[in-house]
Amino acid sequence: MNTTVTLEAIREARARIATHIHRTPVLTCASLDRMAGAQLFFKCENLQKTGSFKIRGATNAVLSLDEAEATRGVVTHSSGNHAAALARAASQRGIPSWIVMPSNAPKAKVRAVEGYGGQVTFCEPTIASRESTAAQIIERIGAVMIHPYNNDRIIAGQGTAALELLEEVPGLDVVMAPVSGGGLLSGTAIASKAMRPQARVIGAEPKNADDAYRSLQSGKLEPLAQAHTMADGLRAGLCERTLGILRERVDEIVVVTEEEIVAAMRHVWERMKIIVEPSSAVAFAAVLKSPAAAGKHVGILLSGGNVDLEQLPFAAATGEPRSKLVARAHGAACDRGES
Amino acid sequence: MNTTVTLEAIREARARIATHIHRTPVLTCASLDRMAGAQLFFKCENLQKTGSFKIRGATNAVLSLDEAEATRGVVTHSSGNHAAALARAASQRGIPSWIVMPSNAPKAKVRAVEGYGGQVTFCEPTIASRESTAAQIIERIGAVMIHPYNNDRIIAGQGTAALELLEEVPGLDVVMAPVSGGGLLSGTAIASKAMRPQARVIGAEPKNADDAYRSLQSGKLEPLAQAHTMADGLRAGLCERTLGILRERVDEIVVVTEEEIVAAMRHVWERMKIIVEPSSAVAFAAVLKSPAAAGKHVGILLSGGNVDLEQLPFAAATGEPRSKLVARAHGAACDRGES
Repeated sequence: MNTTVTLEAIREARARIATHIHRTPVLTCASLDRMAGAQLFFKCENLQKTGSFKIRGATNAVLSLDEAEATRGVVTHSSGNHAAALARAASQRGIPSWIVMPSNAPKAKVRAVEGYGGQVTFCEPTIASRESTAAQIIERIGAVMIHPYNNDRIIAGQGTAALELLEEVPGLDVVMAPVSGGGLLSGTAIASKAMRPQARVIGAEPKNADDAYRSLQSGKLEPLAQAHTMADGLRAGLCERTLGILRERVDEIVVVTEEEIVAAMRHVWERMKIIVEPSSAVAFAAVLKSPAAAGKHVGILLSGGNVDLEQLPFAAATGEPRSKLVARAHGAACDRGES
Repeated sequence: MNTTVTLEAIREARARIATHIHRTPVLTCASLDRMAGAQLFFKCENLQKTGSFKIRGATNAVLSLDEAEATRGVVTHSSGNHAAALARAASQRGIPSWIVMPSNAPKAKVRAVEGYGGQVTFCEPTIASRESTAAQIIERIGAVMIHPYNNDRIIAGQGTAALELLEEVPGLDVVMAPVSGGGLLSGTAIASKAMRPQARVIGAEPKNADDAYRSLQSGKLEPLAQAHTMADGLRAGLCERTLGILRERVDEIVVVTEEEIVAAMRHVWERMKIIVEPSSAVAFAAVLKSPAAAGKHVGILLSGGNVDLEQLPFAAATGEPRSKLVARAHGAACDRGES
């Protein structure tokens, strides 16, 4: 499947959503530049409304509905940033939203969705249960499904972050974004290759959830059996739509270990003084190990900043071995629904 | 003692330091606005080079030295943000710096100073030892003392943050900054009252280190016997120079409790996704309790973001009572030199 998403669609999305979101700052940091041996430009979607770039796509999708669709409301299944983003986008338009969340979703995320006016329906923590619960709501209420990435309006919305980045820093040699379902990376690649064809577009992915890496190698959708990564925003797999876009426009996927994610996250917190979630740290971790970034002007999409302050992956200074630290961080992120 | 610091001096300082520092972003946050019942504009000096506004004054002071003075190098005593700032400012001019630090200073801060090329001399952790050790260096080497706040060039430099804030948001009704020795609040008050005379200038201070509050009440320097506050950047007391400036230009000092500091810090981390140190949270805590801020356009100087990620004042979700949380946070901040 190819896409109808073009730079023009991304520009239209930007015009549509501009008054509803932050134009996030592009920050630089001399000490991280030295660490990477490159000149880095961080597009700070962690400072975006709802704490992640997801509000861009969700707002574009909701505002693109015609009146008849809009009055039916919207539905999605998500335990993460897309859930809160869709609830807020719907609330801004004054239409209802139904959010299917697994019964073990972190309470903070449930509260965030409810705070934005979303109506939460709990389901079993399996993909099958999520999909059937959402299907029931669609059948019963007629609400419009807004998939977190298998949706051209979502992809166009996510592309507005790279559009803003390239307008502000036109001379980038490399653009780096994390990849999960591929919505952000698709939008980023479409915007980047249209605005700056010579820029290399690189996806960053946890080694423990590397379906995009494998799918781009083989040329077909490779299954994501398990996703034991602390990067809780990167546990989904590509779909045909996003794979098609990435195959045409992404030059490389760089995979990083859990240890590299923690180290990169800590560098960003300590040096830039901003809160990024592990999924964002994945992109910076990839820069640190990628030969393609060395000596270059590199744009990095920091995707979000939603973390649980009581479950941070930074060990106290107890001489705890590194491997244990990572195991704990991993457990904290994967299992925090149970805590 | 009155001051020679004028808006013109602050403008000159800005021109002098502009290429050496970040023009930090002014961020807004709808949920903190709702919490405060006001429209808030955060000047993010936590995102400044060296992690605090101190680099503004230090750079202005160092660049203002004539050649003969500069070749002698600079000296200060500080265990905090001014130490790193002065070391970096000196290094940028290519002159030596001697930083007197107490023997129990956090290792991270010592490393930061050394990383910027500062030559660290340890002393006993008392004010008397700090001053005599610095005096010996001045006598032996002839280095120029750069006091962290009892210095007009420092005050003019610190005032550049408010200058930038008011240029970007001219219609502020209230400008809020934390106060310790009074360098930042002095510069802020001079810039604000010159650029926007109708704006109310408010200082924010920990109740546990409230010498500025008491000094502005009595009209004379009140001693700061103890400073048991987690806001480690706010443990110094005013001097005659800063008291004179504040008496003429500051409308009010608002004091906040340790509990209020932790709560405000947590709100900023969770909602704005930026790392602020407790001293910065003091200013936001004051906004939350100040009737003068209600319904107004309020500028807030977020002074810095240097925290120890292994000693954060956020309790794990253990049902630990609030008072214990604060006690631990307090201990962590006050005692971390020993850890």
